[in-house]
Amino acid sequence: MTLTSADERFKAQAQALGFDWHADIKIGGNYTPVISHGHEIYVSGQIPRMGDQVMAIGCVGHDISLSQAQWAAQICVIRALALLRKQLGSLAHIQQILRITVYVRSAPDFTQHSEVADGASDLLCQILGEAGRHTRTSVGVAQLPKGAAVELDLIAAV
Amino acid sequence: MTLTSADERFKAQAQALGFDWHADIKIGGNYTPVISHGHEIYVSGQIPRMGDQVMAIGCVGHDISLSQAQWAAQICVIRALALLRKQLGSLAHIQQILRITVYVRSAPDFTQHSEVADGASDLLCQILGEAGRHTRTSVGVAQLPKGAAVELDLIAAV
Amino acid sequence: MTLTSADERFKAQAQALGFDWHADIKIGGNYTPVISHGHEIYVSGQIPRMGDQVMAIGCVGHDISLSQAQWAAQICVIRALALLRKQLGSLAHIQQILRITVYVRSAPDFTQHSEVADGASDLLCQILGEAGRHTRTSVGVAQLPKGAAVELDLIAAV
Repeated sequence: MTLTSADERFKAQAQALGFDWHADIKIGGNYTPVISHGHEIYVSGQIPRMGDQVMAIGCVGHDISLSQAQWAAQICVIRALALLRKQLGSLAHIQQILRITVYVRSAPDFTQHSEVADGASDLLCQILGEAGRHTRTSVGVAQLPKGAAVELDLIAAV
Repeated sequence: MTLTSADERFKAQAQALGFDWHADIKIGGNYTPVISHGHEIYVSGQIPRMGDQVMAIGCVGHDISLSQAQWAAQICVIRALALLRKQLGSLAHIQQILRITVYVRSAPDFTQHSEVADGASDLLCQILGEAGRHTRTSVGVAQLPKGAAVELDLIAAV
Repeated sequence: MTLTSADERFKAQAQALGFDWHADIKIGGNYTPVISHGHEIYVSGQIPRMGDQVMAIGCVGHDISLSQAQWAAQICVIRALALLRKQLGSLAHIQQILRITVYVRSAPDFTQHSEVADGASDLLCQILGEAGRHTRTSVGVAQLPKGAAVELDLIAAV
């Protein structure tokens, strides 16, 4: 069976990743998860949190494997899409993901940032189809909030 | 007494932080501090500099405490607002802060990046009110220009 | 002789840097190098790659000198402009570079990120003239994809 809407694909993928898309998305600070302006919508940096718990803590390439980091990047995407869905009513209103930036907390010799980010990119395309195509920047950082392994933010067009 | 305009609140907060808002904002390189395009305005990355001096140099969580880093983030905000004010004539023309990105030079075990960024976020809301609400990404980096403890850039809607 | 068009200056500067601007620009992941939306155009993060080879690998201030890092930043700019040229037909359609972000893989004591980024900024202004003026953020990161010394992304107005 093909899931024909982005919202259906979102729910199926969230479930497959173990993410409860019914739950509220907690934000840890005095800022706003999503802001719309004209035809653009900004989403704050997301870490791989489910409820109160950050699911992947540590350095990628040391404490966290490549495949764990890809999963963490996918949780960040699901959170971003959950926030967009709440703001827009439906993911069908997303015309294009314009930019994602993927921050990977990296062990000194870890250089597979593109491979980590592919986890996020593949999922965006699976859920949103053509609208999920995006430009991307991935970098390796020293630390992230709560010690998370990955952080992702994005800008979309609606 | 309530300060009723964003410009008045800006001046009061700058003074409270020890920042001379009359002075020119020095830029260290061949680029432009602010560029407007349509209804968006971009502000270059700001470090906590007053005149020629970077006020907070070092690793947060090691050389620099959380509260010092919050103060440094606030100086970055004041610089960004001083630049916007010069460009726009008045901060009243800011419709919304769309995005801030906060880079925190982090000791290996420092994970309170959100708390550092809250220094910036709180100040934006105090000065700009509803227009100061924003999306945010905070990350921990290895180094920053001039060894600064914090760097902040932003995009606003006018 | 003065090269009167941005495209001519692009070709001359690419050649001077040893970059074959006829060649395809390889992208290492499931994303899009360039996306246009309205009057804005986003370019994905570029590392200093020529064909299959990353030309500057290592930590700036340790394995890579300041002048090598400046050259690497210039290769990133040439790649970004080659992608914009392919998308737009001509660099003459660029109205303004709005933002560049320069990520420098930094040795622990390296703080000349602005000087590295000046390599990129100077080249943008040389090729695009007034349209090459931009806002900028430069930061020092722990690692970059493929171990590259520098990564650069940008947003332009058309």
